[in-house]
Amino acid sequence: MTAEIVSVGTELLLGQTVDTNAAELGRKLAALGIVHRRRQTVGDNLERAAEAIREALFRADTVFTIGGLGPTQDDLTRDAIALALGVSLVHDPEIEAHLRAMFERRRIPWTDSQTRQAQRPEGSQPVANPNGTAPGLICERDGKRVIALPGPPNEFGPMVEGPVGGYLAALTGGMALHSRVVRVCGMGESMVERTIRDLVDGENPTVAPYAKLGEVHLRVSTMASDGDTAASVLDPVVATIRERLGNHVYGFDDQPLESAVIGLLRDRKQTLAVAESVTGGGLGGRLTSVEGSSAAFVGGVIAYQAQIKEQLLGVSRELLDAHGTVSEACAVAMAEGAHERFATDFALGITGNAGPTVDAAGTRVGTVFIALASFEGTQVVEHEFTGQRGAVRSKASQSALTMLWFALNR
Amino acid sequence: MTAEIVSVGTELLLGQTVDTNAAELGRKLAALGIVHRRRQTVGDNLERAAEAIREALFRADTVFTIGGLGPTQDDLTRDAIALALGVSLVHDPEIEAHLRAMFERRRIPWTDSQTRQAQRPEGSQPVANPNGTAPGLICERDGKRVIALPGPPNEFGPMVEGPVGGYLAALTGGMALHSRVVRVCGMGESMVERTIRDLVDGENPTVAPYAKLGEVHLRVSTMASDGDTAASVLDPVVATIRERLGNHVYGFDDQPLESAVIGLLRDRKQTLAVAESVTGGGLGGRLTSVEGSSAAFVGGVIAYQAQIKEQLLGVSRELLDAHGTVSEACAVAMAEGAHERFATDFALGITGNAGPTVDAAGTRVGTVFIALASFEGTQVVEHEFTGQRGAVRSKASQSALTMLWFALNR
Repeated sequence: MTAEIVSVGTELLLGQTVDTNAAELGRKLAALGIVHRRRQTVGDNLERAAEAIREALFRADTVFTIGGLGPTQDDLTRDAIALALGVSLVHDPEIEAHLRAMFERRRIPWTDSQTRQAQRPEGSQPVANPNGTAPGLICERDGKRVIALPGPPNEFGPMVEGPVGGYLAALTGGMALHSRVVRVCGMGESMVERTIRDLVDGENPTVAPYAKLGEVHLRVSTMASDGDTAASVLDPVVATIRERLGNHVYGFDDQPLESAVIGLLRDRKQTLAVAESVTGGGLGGRLTSVEGSSAAFVGGVIAYQAQIKEQLLGVSRELLDAHGTVSEACAVAMAEGAHERFATDFALGITGNAGPTVDAAGTRVGTVFIALASFEGTQVVEHEFTGQRGAVRSKASQSALTMLWFALNR
Repeated sequence: MTAEIVSVGTELLLGQTVDTNAAELGRKLAALGIVHRRRQTVGDNLERAAEAIREALFRADTVFTIGGLGPTQDDLTRDAIALALGVSLVHDPEIEAHLRAMFERRRIPWTDSQTRQAQRPEGSQPVANPNGTAPGLICERDGKRVIALPGPPNEFGPMVEGPVGGYLAALTGGMALHSRVVRVCGMGESMVERTIRDLVDGENPTVAPYAKLGEVHLRVSTMASDGDTAASVLDPVVATIRERLGNHVYGFDDQPLESAVIGLLRDRKQTLAVAESVTGGGLGGRLTSVEGSSAAFVGGVIAYQAQIKEQLLGVSRELLDAHGTVSEACAVAMAEGAHERFATDFALGITGNAGPTVDAAGTRVGTVFIALASFEGTQVVEHEFTGQRGAVRSKASQSALTMLWFALNR
């Protein structure tokens, strides 16, 4: 089975949007063992989109389109597919009824342009889109097929992983790439690679390291006809990696660090609070992105201005005057204040300067203090992060989670 | 002048690398007013790369290749260009001498595979690459040209901004695309489009709507030889959009909603606090991503568990027992508690169920209450958001910012 992708959208050509969807679909096709040799990107232009689809369909037996399924005049992908396949567009009353009901629930007035989304090439099947209005489409014809996917990533991703992924798996039904990702924190990429060099040099499974923000992911992959066969190749190597890297391995596959931390806290029936200054709520945001986090994460204080540090965390005015808000002492007092007030097992305190400039006290951009308070006492670490405001803040959250991870695994 | 891009690299098809280079080149071409209608992506395969280049050269007069210029066996772009143009590859002793000197300086042993990088299609000119080994190439033939650019972003970017940018500017001689983005909140894409349909149908400037999470962006563009000429075309249309959409227009170009809100608060010397439950700190995270936000945003409470709502925000046990935590009454009490305790001009309270399941009180996933307390009283809105946990939380933050934006613009 061979596939091609046609991404549709002038914003892609103009570089206003980076085509992450195509990369995601590429990974999905690789995982399913579907050969994918070419991708085209065209603007919101009916003739060029239809031509690209026609050419792709000539070379491959499955063509994916991405984008151009919305309600506006320049959403032309439905028309382009119909033109390329030589069929007409038909109005689907079921899709319209579904859309109208959705609009009513959301109390959004119905406009006639929405009916565009209820059109589909004759002979096609709609694919449910629980996260948006435009359905996907599967258009089969002469043993080949065009699969139309929506452009917004929050609609695209679930459709590829869900119904379209299932449809493709049923089509291929054989060999596929099976992968496991081993997620590593608190160790740099070159150190990780040095520790498992022999495995990276191996051929089956392949082991590929990827450096991420504050962590390293190791993708361990093999081609196999089924999960059991794959596991017999992957599991021993994953076990060896785990043995060599120890507690630096915090999770597998799609599990982010915040989820591993929450999971461990929940298992132990322990609780966590945060006192955030430089991250401004971002750490709480990450922790609460985990389903079921409320069992372990009680909440915290966004102590952005100094007065809040005093008022809600009991950081004393004398301490602030003597050490400043970006200091080891302040981070410790924030963590201990949260630990005491929220009566949790652990509390993290973060203060620092994310820029853009050296602060009034002369603290450099990137200086961040992170303290972890528990019943065993309080530890604190000073970091000097590089990068701009967003990078400094992300690295601060990541380091706080890493610190807690190692404390939980001591 | 028309252009096409051919990105070369199996890692792009497999989705291991996202093609940010192509987006960057797209922006450069748009800025230079070079029409760019199609992009292709092929793997490290000589025939397919040559075919893609040949096809692009048939349609456009300038073809850019990205990637495949390194020293290894699968770096085939030089060969593919020669094949597509029907010329031979020649060895360039100057390039080799330059590479050998570079290797010597860096004390890296010379290997024979490096000589591949000293080859170039007959009649081409090398382009200096100060950040890597492989030079770029400009291959002119029959009034058209193929421009080969290296794949590593730190080599690609400086080459596009530097020598290749200069070469292109000389070719185009002045005209460039000038754009402004008008950012709209609190109005859906089709309603926006209906309100400015005549402008979207216009030809100069072009007006293109893009739906984003909880907002709409309108890109207004025109080709012009300089900024003043562009402004004389863009400004009246931007003014008309502003007039028609009123306060729904919150900003321009790259300014996000949180920055517009913080800016307005700062201008008026007003302050804001948050009381976040379902967003868990995410709203504070967005607000503090804005440089200088501490002048207006004092902080807040992440009241994830009910006890924190009582303890730090003074939400009464009776209210929680009577209405539950996901209720209009609770959102109001959270906002009013924060408004009073932090002594700010405004306070936002957010409570809801982001899933994954209906909560103990029977509240549906996606139900979110947002309250805004000020000295003029408290308003509260119930939302029913679609999508998964992350989408519900993002939409909740976006809606809270939109609510505050309209309160500030009343």
